Amino acid sequence: MKTISENACFGGTQGVYTHTSQVCDCDMTFGLFLPEEAAEGPVPLLWYLSGLTCTHENAMTKAGAQSWAAAHGIALVFPDTSPRGEWVADDEAYDLGQGAGFYVNATEAPWAAHFQMWDYITEELTTALDHSFAVDMERQAITGHSMGGHGALTMAMSLPGRFRSVSAFAPISNPTASDWGRKQLSAYLGNNEETWAAHDATLLMREKGFDGPILIDTGTNDQFIDLLKPEALAEATAARRQQATLRMQPGYDHSYFFVSTFIEEHVAFHADALYA
Amino acid sequence: MKTISENACFGGTQGVYTHTSQVCDCDMTFGLFLPEEAAEGPVPLLWYLSGLTCTHENAMTKAGAQSWAAAHGIALVFPDTSPRGEWVADDEAYDLGQGAGFYVNATEAPWAAHFQMWDYITEELTTALDHSFAVDMERQAITGHSMGGHGALTMAMSLPGRFRSVSAFAPISNPTASDWGRKQLSAYLGNNEETWAAHDATLLMREKGFDGPILIDTGTNDQFIDLLKPEALAEATAARRQQATLRMQPGYDHSYFFVSTFIEEHVAFHADALYA
Repeated sequence: MKTISENACFGGTQGVYTHTSQVCDCDMTFGLFLPEEAAEGPVPLLWYLSGLTCTHENAMTKAGAQSWAAAHGIALVFPDTSPRGEWVADDEAYDLGQGAGFYVNATEAPWAAHFQMWDYITEELTTALDHSFAVDMERQAITGHSMGGHGALTMAMSLPGRFRSVSAFAPISNPTASDWGRKQLSAYLGNNEETWAAHDATLLMREKGFDGPILIDTGTNDQFIDLLKPEALAEATAARRQQATLRMQPGYDHSYFFVSTFIEEHVAFHADALYA
Repeated sequence: MKTISENACFGGTQGVYTHTSQVCDCDMTFGLFLPEEAAEGPVPLLWYLSGLTCTHENAMTKAGAQSWAAAHGIALVFPDTSPRGEWVADDEAYDLGQGAGFYVNATEAPWAAHFQMWDYITEELTTALDHSFAVDMERQAITGHSMGGHGALTMAMSLPGRFRSVSAFAPISNPTASDWGRKQLSAYLGNNEETWAAHDATLLMREKGFDGPILIDTGTNDQFIDLLKPEALAEATAARRQQATLRMQPGYDHSYFFVSTFIEEHVAFHADALYA
């Protein structure tokens, strides 16, 4: 675990660290905010999964989450969105390859060698954080934006008991029925669509749901909303009688100006669950 | 306008009044809460439409709304749910006839002679309140429970510019596809289902939507949820990109214990719109 930087931040520390990922077979960088309470013992952990084209840095610098995490004594982890490196497969499109891991374990060439983001997040980075930092793995919650909202929702529903609460900003909600999804799931997982279902929040909501609270915000002026398909997940959530708050926020778009507007409420929502 | 009772309440007055309805061809009774600010001039008005079997009295005595209306300086009106009287048609079922007007203008015998609840609420009672009380008809909002949530949503979407905001508790959301709806719409409006569409919140959301904020709460343990069909309205709302907050509240049922739990947030939601 190599320290890239550490900055004092809202009474705690915003760090950036690099470690060698076995599952992705490359070095991976992540951001970690620890509130001042972490000096005294393990604190709850909120995961923030980012969207297409993002690195560990975008949310860390633009979401404004640290202020509210500090207020609630919660750690924030900002993983990268894909493996990285010159020898790691990539694509010219912004929405495939590096920066676009889609939080799956790729099974298809040329991606399978490095693109193991599901295992990286849910196993390797989880273990690394537990070993190296004062975070309480019995109190985890997860959020994310766009592709990261997809990751947060699919991980929360697929790993019962892992996360006490899940939220999302403008999540890709039904990727098996969207151009933000079909292209990538086909590339990473192959053309057998049965393997895609485990990575579609709407299908998981129909199958499993989530044993805890859900908060989802989407802007009515989101320029990518037709790709996100919030209506599919809204229908599935209500049909399941799933505990949830689904908000269509008037005038907001897909940007971090939208995320930063509502991050306070998302952190407070998770704090309620983490300290319940 | 005959005063049945007036009680001091949270610094204002909770009144019950009876007047002769021309459109329903019978006397109609309603509750009206006026906050103390009404002594100085017209105040904003929040309509509360009640559900099956209710009179003007249920929400007035069980919802706990007056406390929050007083805090925001808002008047509350609690209309009855149907025409009443020995000479008014009725049915042995709890969900048809007296106490079950469904907020439509009946066209079929034996209902058409008195069951004109749409016109009663949106025209006759509106005019009567404007003439007799210190309410500001330029600042109206509407909410309701169950059948009353159906009424609130359909009136809000059908009368653009009338209501600044609309909310609902466990609304009947897709009556043209539910046993809470098909029976009554058939009885009151006849078997031409085209005439039903104007009284289905899901169909209205697809056609028109609402030019303002929407807040809807439904309990996950609502014993009537299969009749309410929140999933249909959730899908339509998200598909329209309609400004809205849709909440599935864990563990809550269809009762006034549910309504009273969230009435504070609904009144505050309407206050935001009424004072914008």
